[in-house]
Amino acid sequence: RSREMAKLTQLIDNDVFRAYATYTAIVLLKMMLMSLVTAYFRVTRKAFANPEDTASFGKGENAKKYLRTDPDVERARRGHLNDLENIVPFLGIGLLYALSGPDLSTALLHFRIFTGARIIHTFAYLIPLPQPGRGLSWAVGYAVTISMAYQVLK
Amino acid sequence: RSREMAKLTQLIDNDVFRAYATYTAIVLLKMMLMSLVTAYFRVTRKAFANPEDTASFGKGENAKKYLRTDPDVERARRGHLNDLENIVPFLGIGLLYALSGPDLSTALLHFRIFTGARIIHTFAYLIPLPQPGRGLSWAVGYAVTISMAYQVLK
Amino acid sequence: RSREMAKLTQLIDNDVFRAYATYTAIVLLKMMLMSLVTAYFRVTRKAFANPEDTASFGKGENAKKYLRTDPDVERARRGHLNDLENIVPFLGIGLLYALSGPDLSTALLHFRIFTGARIIHTFAYLIPLPQPGRGLSWAVGYAVTISMAYQVLK
Repeated sequence: RSREMAKLTQLIDNDVFRAYATYTAIVLLKMMLMSLVTAYFRVTRKAFANPEDTASFGKGENAKKYLRTDPDVERARRGHLNDLENIVPFLGIGLLYALSGPDLSTALLHFRIFTGARIIHTFAYLIPLPQPGRGLSWAVGYAVTISMAYQVLK
Repeated sequence: RSREMAKLTQLIDNDVFRAYATYTAIVLLKMMLMSLVTAYFRVTRKAFANPEDTASFGKGENAKKYLRTDPDVERARRGHLNDLENIVPFLGIGLLYALSGPDLSTALLHFRIFTGARIIHTFAYLIPLPQPGRGLSWAVGYAVTISMAYQVLK
Repeated sequence: RSREMAKLTQLIDNDVFRAYATYTAIVLLKMMLMSLVTAYFRVTRKAFANPEDTASFGKGENAKKYLRTDPDVERARRGHLNDLENIVPFLGIGLLYALSGPDLSTALLHFRIFTGARIIHTFAYLIPLPQPGRGLSWAVGYAVTISMAYQVLK
C-alpha cells in the first residue's frame, strides 16, 4: 500500500503533471462558475426553464409568465457551452501532453496561455466586449490545444 | 512489456484510484442513459429535430409536423446538459484528487456523495420533484467537486 | 527528476496507453472541428447569436436581422453537442479501460471502432445521410463505450 502511494506521489510530484493539475483545476472551477452566473441571471431576470422552478411565484398564469428566455441568461448559457466545447479537449489532450514528457517551461506556457485565454473569453462574453475580443480569446485557446495535440500525435 | 503492465496494474490496484474508476464509470453510464431517455421521449412524443428523422412518417407536411419541440424532450435534454456541466469537472478534478493521495475513506465519501447526488438530481429533474429537491442535489454535487478541487490546489 | 520522467515515459510507452492517447487526440480534434463548421455556417448563412457579432454589418435593424437561427448552424451545433455527450464518456471510461490492462488488439478494436463510428456520425449528421445512418453510427460508438465500462467495472 505505502509503496503504491509513493509511486502515485511521484507522479503527482512531477513538475509538469503538477502544473497540469493546477491549471486544469483552475479552468474547471472557472467553468463551474458559469453555473452560478446562469443561476444569478435566472433569479434576477426571473427567467426559468422548468415549471417547478417558478412555483414559489404563485400558481397558474402568474408563475407561467416566468417560464421564458432572457438575453442575459442565454448569453451565460452560451458561454458555459463554449467552455465545455473547449475545456473538454484541453482536459484530455492536456493530460496526454503532460504525460508525453514536455519541457516544464514549454508546458507552463501552454497551460497558462490556455487558462488566460479562457478567462478573457468569459469576460469578453459576459461584459460583452466588442468583437474580435471574444473571437480572438477563443482562437488563442483553440490554437494552444492544437499545439498540444500535435506534440501528442508526433 | 510485462513490467510496464505490472506498473499499470499497481496504479489500478491502488484503492483510491479503483474507487475513482468505479464511481466515474457509474456516473458516466448514468449520463449516457440520458441519451436513451431523450430518444425515448422523441419517439413516444413524436418530436424530432432533424428532417431525416421524420422521413418514416411520410413526406411533406405530414412529416414536417413532427419537427417540433416537446416539453419532456427538452426536459431530458436539459438534464443531460446539466450532467455534462457537472460530471466533466468531477472527471477532471476527481482524477487529480485521486492522484493526490487522499485517505481512502475520505475519497470514498466524496465519490459516493457526488454519485448519489447526481442520481437524485436525475430523478428530481425527470419526475420532476418540487424544488428545492433538484437545486439541493445539484448543490451537493457541486460542493463535493469544490472540496476535491481545494485538496488538489492546496 | 529524470527517474520520474523515465517512469512517465514508461507509462506513455505502454502500447495500450499510446493507442488510447492517439485515438483520444484524433476524436477530440474531430470534435474541435465542429467549432469551425459552426463558425463557417454562421458566417456564410449570416446567422449569429450575439449582437456584438453582427456589429460589422451596420447598426440598428440592419444588423439585428442577422440575429437569427439557421437550419445548417443548428445542425452543426447539434452534431457538436452529440460529440460532447458521447466523447466525454469515451474520454473517461477509455482512460480507465486503458489502465485496466486489456489486450492491445482488443483495446485497438475498441478505440478504432469508436473513432470510426464518430467520424461516420459527423458525416451522417452534416450531409445529412438518411436514417438509420446517423442512428447506427451513434449506437456503435455507444456500444463500444458500454463494452469498455463493463471491463472497467468487472
